[in-house]
Amino acid sequence: MRVDLGNALDTVASPGIPRDALDRLDERVADAHERIETGRENHEHGYESLNLPQTTDADEIRTAVESFADAETVLTVGIGGSALGAATLAHGLESDVDAYFLDNVDPEHVSSLLDSISLSDTAVNVVSRSGTTAETLANFLAVRDAMESDGVDWTEQTFVTTGEEGNLRNLAERHDLPALDVPDGVPGRFSVLSTVGLACAAIQGHDIDAVLSGAQAEANRLSGSLFDSPAYAYGTACYALDERGAGINAMMPYAESLETFAEWYAQLWAESLGKDGLGQTPVRALGATDQHSQLQLYRAGPRDKMVTFVRPTEREDCAIPETDLPGLEYLGGQNLGTLLDAEFEATEASLAESSQPSVRLEIDRVDEYGLGELLYCLEASCVLAGELYNVETFIQPAVEWGKRAARGLLGGGDFDEADSVADKSTLVIE
Amino acid sequence: MRVDLGNALDTVASPGIPRDALDRLDERVADAHERIETGRENHEHGYESLNLPQTTDADEIRTAVESFADAETVLTVGIGGSALGAATLAHGLESDVDAYFLDNVDPEHVSSLLDSISLSDTAVNVVSRSGTTAETLANFLAVRDAMESDGVDWTEQTFVTTGEEGNLRNLAERHDLPALDVPDGVPGRFSVLSTVGLACAAIQGHDIDAVLSGAQAEANRLSGSLFDSPAYAYGTACYALDERGAGINAMMPYAESLETFAEWYAQLWAESLGKDGLGQTPVRALGATDQHSQLQLYRAGPRDKMVTFVRPTEREDCAIPETDLPGLEYLGGQNLGTLLDAEFEATEASLAESSQPSVRLEIDRVDEYGLGELLYCLEASCVLAGELYNVETFIQPAVEWGKRAARGLLGGGDFDEADSVADKSTLVIE
Repeated sequence: MRVDLGNALDTVASPGIPRDALDRLDERVADAHERIETGRENHEHGYESLNLPQTTDADEIRTAVESFADAETVLTVGIGGSALGAATLAHGLESDVDAYFLDNVDPEHVSSLLDSISLSDTAVNVVSRSGTTAETLANFLAVRDAMESDGVDWTEQTFVTTGEEGNLRNLAERHDLPALDVPDGVPGRFSVLSTVGLACAAIQGHDIDAVLSGAQAEANRLSGSLFDSPAYAYGTACYALDERGAGINAMMPYAESLETFAEWYAQLWAESLGKDGLGQTPVRALGATDQHSQLQLYRAGPRDKMVTFVRPTEREDCAIPETDLPGLEYLGGQNLGTLLDAEFEATEASLAESSQPSVRLEIDRVDEYGLGELLYCLEASCVLAGELYNVETFIQPAVEWGKRAARGLLGGGDFDEADSVADKSTLVIE
Repeated sequence: MRVDLGNALDTVASPGIPRDALDRLDERVADAHERIETGRENHEHGYESLNLPQTTDADEIRTAVESFADAETVLTVGIGGSALGAATLAHGLESDVDAYFLDNVDPEHVSSLLDSISLSDTAVNVVSRSGTTAETLANFLAVRDAMESDGVDWTEQTFVTTGEEGNLRNLAERHDLPALDVPDGVPGRFSVLSTVGLACAAIQGHDIDAVLSGAQAEANRLSGSLFDSPAYAYGTACYALDERGAGINAMMPYAESLETFAEWYAQLWAESLGKDGLGQTPVRALGATDQHSQLQLYRAGPRDKMVTFVRPTEREDCAIPETDLPGLEYLGGQNLGTLLDAEFEATEASLAESSQPSVRLEIDRVDEYGLGELLYCLEASCVLAGELYNVETFIQPAVEWGKRAARGLLGGGDFDEADSVADKSTLVIE
């Protein structure tokens, strides 16, 4: 894949990066790369994620799910990093096997989804490293109940992806369910290239070896200089633009199939870098649709943001029929893809013309290999950025307070956090 | 509906609004309200949008679409404000009639959608005020072609929603298609309560009178003081927090059915207020899912944002079955809705505990009336905020440059903007 920083330089944009600042930052990239390589070699927590293209055993995944070869639907029960990687692949790639995700505890949504799918043809993957995630376990209990109500033997159609011990591991042992290991040292948001992201893809019939090959190709490009590594170039540009005021990073793929990828990126970025008062705010956008929604702000609003375009350079196209509608003759006989490409080029130029910074990421196609490249590139960019920010990329301490408060409110134990919920200040207007 | 500003005050949050600053701002709200009322009375461009609960003729909409009473699917072809309002209602409310939207020109997506629906059972609504929107017309040409290929008489199943003249109007006259008028003075992003947003809802069997009644209830609450009007209270709080550094506004509904509402809000906010170097950046989030994605950043990242929670206080619930899984007994026998409510309360308190500002918007239910309240409230908030920012809320000049560039690139005329696309600066790393 390719990264183009041309429109992020200060010769184009404000905020923009001076070319010599990039050269100076490259020394820090060399140090960060050394730190990252040490972390990978020593299998340190988090850094181990960047080894997944080598360590993930595709055969093991295929074997674990082979009993679900006839499933017409695969339902992943998980939340956050336990769902977003699999969802990114499922929504990025076409398959005859439908994929659904229970990644929220909205009762109306859960009921409606369970009513709408044929549970007897559904493989269920319950994903939680700890085996205790409240949302996931509650949803699993609801799914199991629905299967029993439909006369479906849930033990025949369920598998788990979890850590070495815990509730889900015990459940799998008790009922002889297939079980995949969540690898050690890999936080959820970095787990797409492991069992966590790839089991669903395998059931959908996708070529998971090609995903890993694409990722490995990007791994091979990590080097001591941002000028030799697309991943490091992107991570450095984001950091350098944020330092200069671009606290917002809008991810705008020009492909509908990458809409969920933008959500995956938003978790990766927010949870890894959002700490110690630092971190860009990720915004999910979609080209060309959001030209008619967000572009006004991106072009004419505050100079506090950068836009990241993701553009596949090849795709199946679809002809626009000839037309005699006045003023639209120019469209007839062209392709929708040509129109989409023109919109992309125009939007990128439109931001540059108003001196708003953007970066272009290009892959050849939205296929298994291209997604592998893109996902690994963003993960390595994020790890590199974390080194530059000097934050602890692989932890997420700020979500714990709320978890304890919720658990206390539900009667799951005594937690001071639950008491402070009652102290809410109010100023109600109705 | 209710707005609670308690957690946006400086006694809780930083940035936060001093209580006396709100009192002072209330004088500006009184002036702004007068301006808005004058605009509504004189049917001025944009302000007229706030009259829609009175001026929209629900019977006219029902009559126009009555020939589609047997449709199993309704396909809206439109982009930006021509699609997002209808999509918000479609995704907010359950129906036996499926709704799809062609709001992008991704060829793979268009082909895949047209292959997957039964066009002979589909009502097609082509929405463009001008009748010249390139994406919409190109998609319509593709849809018409697909219908003809399937032996479907497209003239029997298509209607248009458009301005008084233009391509779509001519098309409707030539082929005797039902045609709905886009009302004058209503920009696309403010059109959900007009023909543009409600035709699809009517075909889906929703009670569009109740949508308008909910909206009217909020209209009745507009007054010269923010302390008497939920809409003005919210608009003022956003403006006052932005002034103090909260340049990002994350919209986080606790209901899956409001996910598209957050997109609708993002267009409303970005295109109305993002100009002259001003405007909050809207971010779309979803509770409880994004607690496992964005919350780390919201709680521990830069103090540059506010979170807007939207919470329905009533919903159909779904029991969590009893369980003997160790440590999860506390969940068994509760409801998913109780869990979701606890997560909401915990997340709100967690932000307050770390002094990050938030605002709570409450509706009773996600139903026609509740959505009417919520949509009108946000529109009036946005208009009020535009008055406080002193920007031209109802125009979107910054999207024009890119449109001309794209048209030039496609051979649709000579435009200087197209030439400047070729000048792109590059710094490629691959």
